[in-house]
Amino acid sequence: MNNIKVAIIMGSKSDLPVMEEAAGVLKDFKISYEMKVLSAHRTPKETVKYVEGLRDNGVQVIICGAGVSAALAGTAAAHTTLPVIGVPIDSSSLKGMDALLSTVQMPPGVPVGAMAIGKMGAKNSALYALRILSLNDPKIVKSLEQYNEEQKKKILEINLS
Amino acid sequence: MNNIKVAIIMGSKSDLPVMEEAAGVLKDFKISYEMKVLSAHRTPKETVKYVEGLRDNGVQVIICGAGVSAALAGTAAAHTTLPVIGVPIDSSSLKGMDALLSTVQMPPGVPVGAMAIGKMGAKNSALYALRILSLNDPKIVKSLEQYNEEQKKKILEINLS
Amino acid sequence: MNNIKVAIIMGSKSDLPVMEEAAGVLKDFKISYEMKVLSAHRTPKETVKYVEGLRDNGVQVIICGAGVSAALAGTAAAHTTLPVIGVPIDSSSLKGMDALLSTVQMPPGVPVGAMAIGKMGAKNSALYALRILSLNDPKIVKSLEQYNEEQKKKILEINLS
Amino acid sequence: MNNIKVAIIMGSKSDLPVMEEAAGVLKDFKISYEMKVLSAHRTPKETVKYVEGLRDNGVQVIICGAGVSAALAGTAAAHTTLPVIGVPIDSSSLKGMDALLSTVQMPPGVPVGAMAIGKMGAKNSALYALRILSLNDPKIVKSLEQYNEEQKKKILEINLS
Amino acid sequence: MNNIKVAIIMGSKSDLPVMEEAAGVLKDFKISYEMKVLSAHRTPKETVKYVEGLRDNGVQVIICGAGVSAALAGTAAAHTTLPVIGVPIDSSSLKGMDALLSTVQMPPGVPVGAMAIGKMGAKNSALYALRILSLNDPKIVKSLEQYNEEQKKKILEINLS
Amino acid sequence: MNNIKVAIIMGSKSDLPVMEEAAGVLKDFKISYEMKVLSAHRTPKETVKYVEGLRDNGVQVIICGAGVSAALAGTAAAHTTLPVIGVPIDSSSLKGMDALLSTVQMPPGVPVGAMAIGKMGAKNSALYALRILSLNDPKIVKSLEQYNEEQKKKILEINLS
Amino acid sequence: MNNIKVAIIMGSKSDLPVMEEAAGVLKDFKISYEMKVLSAHRTPKETVKYVEGLRDNGVQVIICGAGVSAALAGTAAAHTTLPVIGVPIDSSSLKGMDALLSTVQMPPGVPVGAMAIGKMGAKNSALYALRILSLNDPKIVKSLEQYNEEQKKKILEINLS
Amino acid sequence: MNNIKVAIIMGSKSDLPVMEEAAGVLKDFKISYEMKVLSAHRTPKETVKYVEGLRDNGVQVIICGAGVSAALAGTAAAHTTLPVIGVPIDSSSLKGMDALLSTVQMPPGVPVGAMAIGKMGAKNSALYALRILSLNDPKIVKSLEQYNEEQKKKILEINLS
Repeated sequence: MNNIKVAIIMGSKSDLPVMEEAAGVLKDFKISYEMKVLSAHRTPKETVKYVEGLRDNGVQVIICGAGVSAALAGTAAAHTTLPVIGVPIDSSSLKGMDALLSTVQMPPGVPVGAMAIGKMGAKNSALYALRILSLNDPKIVKSLEQYNEEQKKKILEINLS
Repeated sequence: MNNIKVAIIMGSKSDLPVMEEAAGVLKDFKISYEMKVLSAHRTPKETVKYVEGLRDNGVQVIICGAGVSAALAGTAAAHTTLPVIGVPIDSSSLKGMDALLSTVQMPPGVPVGAMAIGKMGAKNSALYALRILSLNDPKIVKSLEQYNEEQKKKILEINLS
Repeated sequence: MNNIKVAIIMGSKSDLPVMEEAAGVLKDFKISYEMKVLSAHRTPKETVKYVEGLRDNGVQVIICGAGVSAALAGTAAAHTTLPVIGVPIDSSSLKGMDALLSTVQMPPGVPVGAMAIGKMGAKNSALYALRILSLNDPKIVKSLEQYNEEQKKKILEINLS
Repeated sequence: MNNIKVAIIMGSKSDLPVMEEAAGVLKDFKISYEMKVLSAHRTPKETVKYVEGLRDNGVQVIICGAGVSAALAGTAAAHTTLPVIGVPIDSSSLKGMDALLSTVQMPPGVPVGAMAIGKMGAKNSALYALRILSLNDPKIVKSLEQYNEEQKKKILEINLS
Repeated sequence: MNNIKVAIIMGSKSDLPVMEEAAGVLKDFKISYEMKVLSAHRTPKETVKYVEGLRDNGVQVIICGAGVSAALAGTAAAHTTLPVIGVPIDSSSLKGMDALLSTVQMPPGVPVGAMAIGKMGAKNSALYALRILSLNDPKIVKSLEQYNEEQKKKILEINLS
Repeated sequence: MNNIKVAIIMGSKSDLPVMEEAAGVLKDFKISYEMKVLSAHRTPKETVKYVEGLRDNGVQVIICGAGVSAALAGTAAAHTTLPVIGVPIDSSSLKGMDALLSTVQMPPGVPVGAMAIGKMGAKNSALYALRILSLNDPKIVKSLEQYNEEQKKKILEINLS
Repeated sequence: MNNIKVAIIMGSKSDLPVMEEAAGVLKDFKISYEMKVLSAHRTPKETVKYVEGLRDNGVQVIICGAGVSAALAGTAAAHTTLPVIGVPIDSSSLKGMDALLSTVQMPPGVPVGAMAIGKMGAKNSALYALRILSLNDPKIVKSLEQYNEEQKKKILEINLS
Repeated sequence: MNNIKVAIIMGSKSDLPVMEEAAGVLKDFKISYEMKVLSAHRTPKETVKYVEGLRDNGVQVIICGAGVSAALAGTAAAHTTLPVIGVPIDSSSLKGMDALLSTVQMPPGVPVGAMAIGKMGAKNSALYALRILSLNDPKIVKSLEQYNEEQKKKILEINLS
């Protein structure tokens, strides 16, 4: 776990196609990360132990992706003082509304920063982690400004006529 | 913890007026219970430790009441093989819909038996615990039949004219 | 009906692919069960008669799967003192939200333990039944612990890199 | 039960203030009715027996008011071939959405005519019963036309300036 | 328009596959009906004129199927004293919830009997019309009893093992 | 009806406290308006007749406020080619969600410009009418710019410390 | 930008298939328009600058289509006194409910006229723009009347038998 | 603006009682902050200018509280690369669901960390800011650990019997 800045945890292997959006952004920004499947409900002890060790290992942000009664981000937030980002995943007939409410409606004292449901939110979770990391790293500020500039260009270059 | 059959846990002291509905029913049925405030998010280790000890202490059913991102019942279910009953509590502007989805939409492998939102559900959680306990105790079967009979009588005695 | 411990009822034959998830788990745990299609609305008398006979026949848990205005679990709970588990099924354009609310929002006096919508909930209904049965059967406690251990292992063995 | 044309059933005495809106309209139209508290869940057999006798007693329309998992109208519809009108009642934190979906989302074969949630729906349930009764009674057609005329007049007489 | 007992109106030709469920039931019961596309919003005057003439033409029940802001049933109910049955149709991204609320939440004075969303509700709309017509026609009572009996048989004949 | 530029219609007198927000803004901007109670369901013919005459009388914008199954704006839009603004009003247990969906989910061909639920939307309906009127009247452009400037000032003058 | 009367802006190129419904209607009515991709979040300054110039360039109505947290219409309304029409687009698992609420629930002072979700709303946005433009152009009144007439004919020509 | 670490912005003065929960926590942790009323819709330019200057002034986290179509957090995120925390505020009949979806459902590229609706979320927004600030300040790590310890103690000291 050398130099890992961001830990990406997901509750099930089936969440991988969504959470890879986060990994992809971090890779593009050359931020080292670690990606793991750990469940708040099925591997609770391992999840807690993993989360508790992260700050001392130099990790600065934890991204948690989970569906249905998405307890993963809340569990992580309860066992660390690092900032935790939650990505609700659409994996039931309720289309992610269950995961969204479970992720965002955290009781006072245990904050989670919730993103949009699904791939959109996964991508943003990495960009949000980068904003946090940028507070200590002017190069990331630059990279983010460049990224936004490119986003802008792509839109402005669209010619509908 | 002598002879305690049902453990009632709630995530916050403010949940007490709701969960007392459960306690009241158990008292009426002369079932010994224990009632505690323990939070999945703010006292996670104590919650886990408490839940893990319950089966060996003779407890047979766990009732968990919690609001908002209600992780308590799921956390309990993840650390025991006892049946866990979840009572979603209305403690946010979303009127308990957040707690309901967090409680009921459990991922496969970690079941929670969810009740209705609020006092209604709290009362039923005790009656559900009694149905489970009745499998080993013919006296409880009798008491439940009597209870239902009285419920029925109360309704049939209503004279609207 | 020799030695049947769990009755699985569903409101329509189209619910079978969902409820087979429950049957599958019980089969794996070597618990004898009976599976029937009975409707609260279209075969009300047969449903009531069937449910009323279950306790005397040795059945200990009733699992009811139904969609839309899912009255089956509530009807069962009204005619027995056995624990009833409700599985809301997604069979309308409302994606199971109708079945979930009909199943979980039971009035005081007639408790139903509601599971998640669909296959996820069906699987958990069997695991919940096993937790109830485990109170009388230390072998089931063992099996459940083993099941959870295997679930855990499967997750921990995932290697994303 | 002399000459009773409409039976009004409600699931709980607390539903009376809502269902009196229906009774009030029928009284104004001089239609004889009977009002009863009967629960699909707590007095299921009495409810069934009552409903099954209604056609032979000359009743032509059944109005059922119930809250939460509102099974009353569906239960009635399952035990009669008379037209059943369902009034969802707001008696939980979900503001009647639970009762509305339980009342209106009836499976094919067992129809219920659902009204709006609460007093509005209760009033309309009586007017709907009157429309049904009017098919055999030209006097009711007249009364309904008069009622609509008066409603219209009341609105047109409002002077906002 | 000889001997037409039920008028089926729908707001758009695209609603036909849903509303044919209603027509099919009426055909099976040998009840003459008329089926028309008429829109509350796009052919308002023609809709009103058609509805206003129905009672004098001997029609006894009006079935209205419409999606999105489903004003058709309410418009019909505002221009007749015949019983109007509303079938909400799922024709937007909101999955029929818009049509359901528009159909069922009628203001006091103008009642509509709302059915479930979609084909399920369309089928039931015809069965509901038959229940209304049965008040004057003992043969329909018989047919409905037979229909229910057959429904019951079909379910009881299912053999899952 | 001299010089009336905006017609404000509401479905019930109880909607007046909400719709007065619209009237108040128009008064402040010195735009003549007319305010009326007319119901799509209870005075349908009078509503249609009133709406149909508005363009010829010089009215340029129609504001319609209504609750529950809010058909008023849609009915107006179906009988005029003037722009119609719809204000959903919270007058049921569903908190205006019924009125919002009934107002905004208009079928293709019959557009309504929907505002927010309640007083907020009523106020904005007048400001929206002013934006439309401003296309022909540079004085209104000025007044709107001034209004926005004052809104801005009020916010910037707030001193929280 | 010669003679452009309507500006159609959308937040992403993926919204084009929806917003082309608006363009198609304007083309049919021979109204010149301009269509652009501009994002409230990714090209905020360019969006503001574009919107601020529209009135002086003779544009009279702005149509904004956007999904998820749809800030585009609100941003436009905050930087112009022209009437802004918002089209919520279904581009997340929440089926456009997020975009609908973001578009319609505008705070007092900054009005947006919201249309239905998706293509239906896009088509209506153009018709709504035409109604606004018609206040200055009797030819458009004619065209709209003709359009409605044709819509009506198409419906009345449907022969279901 | 000496040494300000956190900027708290809210869309309206009426949001102050909610956002003071955030200020209170920061005060307790002795973190300097600045609190302002600035609206994405009514003072858009001032909001943008303020947000754009924050990083250079040494601010590290921006907290935005807003109700209804809550565009404030998204607007802030679009004009800075600092981490932005959004607090949805319940200020309409939709109980904050509109503000929640507007805040959390951000499109890819412009991340906002959303908190729970209302005071609960406001309090957590400050604790989340502290977690971010703690990455550079071991004293804040200590303070957060102490805070959590005290939270825990308060719960464990509750004695229900």
